[in-house]
Amino acid sequence: MKQLDVCLTPDLLHLHQLNNVVVVVADIFRATSCMVTGLAYGVGSITPVATVEECKALQEKGYFAAAERNAMKVEGFDLDNSPFSYMSERLIGSHIAMTTTNGTLSIAKAKSAAVKVLIGAFLNLGALVNELRSEQYDVLVLCAGWKGRPNLEDTLFAGALAEALKDEFILVEDAALMAQRLYQQGRGNLLNFVANSSHVRRLQRLGIQKDISYSLQTDLYDVVPVLRGSRLVAMH
Amino acid sequence: MKQLDVCLTPDLLHLHQLNNVVVVVADIFRATSCMVTGLAYGVGSITPVATVEECKALQEKGYFAAAERNAMKVEGFDLDNSPFSYMSERLIGSHIAMTTTNGTLSIAKAKSAAVKVLIGAFLNLGALVNELRSEQYDVLVLCAGWKGRPNLEDTLFAGALAEALKDEFILVEDAALMAQRLYQQGRGNLLNFVANSSHVRRLQRLGIQKDISYSLQTDLYDVVPVLRGSRLVAMH
Repeated sequence: MKQLDVCLTPDLLHLHQLNNVVVVVADIFRATSCMVTGLAYGVGSITPVATVEECKALQEKGYFAAAERNAMKVEGFDLDNSPFSYMSERLIGSHIAMTTTNGTLSIAKAKSAAVKVLIGAFLNLGALVNELRSEQYDVLVLCAGWKGRPNLEDTLFAGALAEALKDEFILVEDAALMAQRLYQQGRGNLLNFVANSSHVRRLQRLGIQKDISYSLQTDLYDVVPVLRGSRLVAMH
Repeated sequence: MKQLDVCLTPDLLHLHQLNNVVVVVADIFRATSCMVTGLAYGVGSITPVATVEECKALQEKGYFAAAERNAMKVEGFDLDNSPFSYMSERLIGSHIAMTTTNGTLSIAKAKSAAVKVLIGAFLNLGALVNELRSEQYDVLVLCAGWKGRPNLEDTLFAGALAEALKDEFILVEDAALMAQRLYQQGRGNLLNFVANSSHVRRLQRLGIQKDISYSLQTDLYDVVPVLRGSRLVAMH
């Protein structure tokens, strides 16, 4: 049987073996929710980069550029890190470069060794579950966390995947089990369950409550973003 | 208000600031449960060391020596890692040197910077809660985990502490919140709740079910082990 493992933060990725593993990166608030939304709305590709400088360089080559640090848009860039910004008509068919505090760093760490990197969010949970069922490989859910620390919302997403795939995958280690149990506890009302979390408090101070509610909705889109070379594109 | 934070594995300790912080180290299966038991039964001191070689060196100086790797006693040492081994009359007043796969490594990592290192287990939960209430410092619960990975039983213990102290301490980050919620979910039957965990399966294969049941009992002892120099002794 295939195995499903969970890495609660990129700072623990060194403990995981990535050869022949499909890595699903999740940064629910808000990088991967933005990526899923953008590709669902017709964005051509999203290139995740680790640094603001790389993002700037791609902007100069004609990319739309999105740079977020500490949950705020960096001066001089085209897009912020709100999923609603990725629904714009001007972005259809366009190429976007994106850097965020946690999410794009996780993608950069994963892509060196994984057989495939997919992007996960509650927004595309069902589509992702179908895709992972059809893959022959083991799965690692890499939670982006917050500056190296685990966070509640990404862990809950990992738990949602574990719960959905429990009949086809073995949950190998306790991190997967803990994520699954937290999801079982919280799934009746995710918004309420995350209300006290550190990141939600941080985002609420910035007035982006609507991004939070939006990003906790399940199965809005059928798209599965996959990393091809340096670009995330919609699968198929 | 004082803060309570949780570090789910020693591999994330670099993210935490330890100055003016009391660190509570927990390795429920079984190092810290052994330490609490031994000191409650009258052992004079327990010196945790990181390596088998250091343990051997203290044995040659007349210490009783306990060395565990991968949940098994290392050849040539006096004691294994079962709490029941620490109830012996021959150990009363004696000095023990101990090294384990995860627990003693965590203590070694914590002692460099923390204002005080205490040892936690379900067995001394109430005594520890009283002690932490009377301290003026913030608290970090350091879960020993398993070879760098988080595990369920140490996380549950961190959650039990968070739950008991929630009126006097702020739970600063999501790791503390997640631990607390898992504990709230599992506390009705901890033994059942950990039954599928990786470490329990590992220990069950070794036939040490009774150590597991024993280590999940709450408030058997009033002792709070504290690190004084290189030795753990009973507080007061």
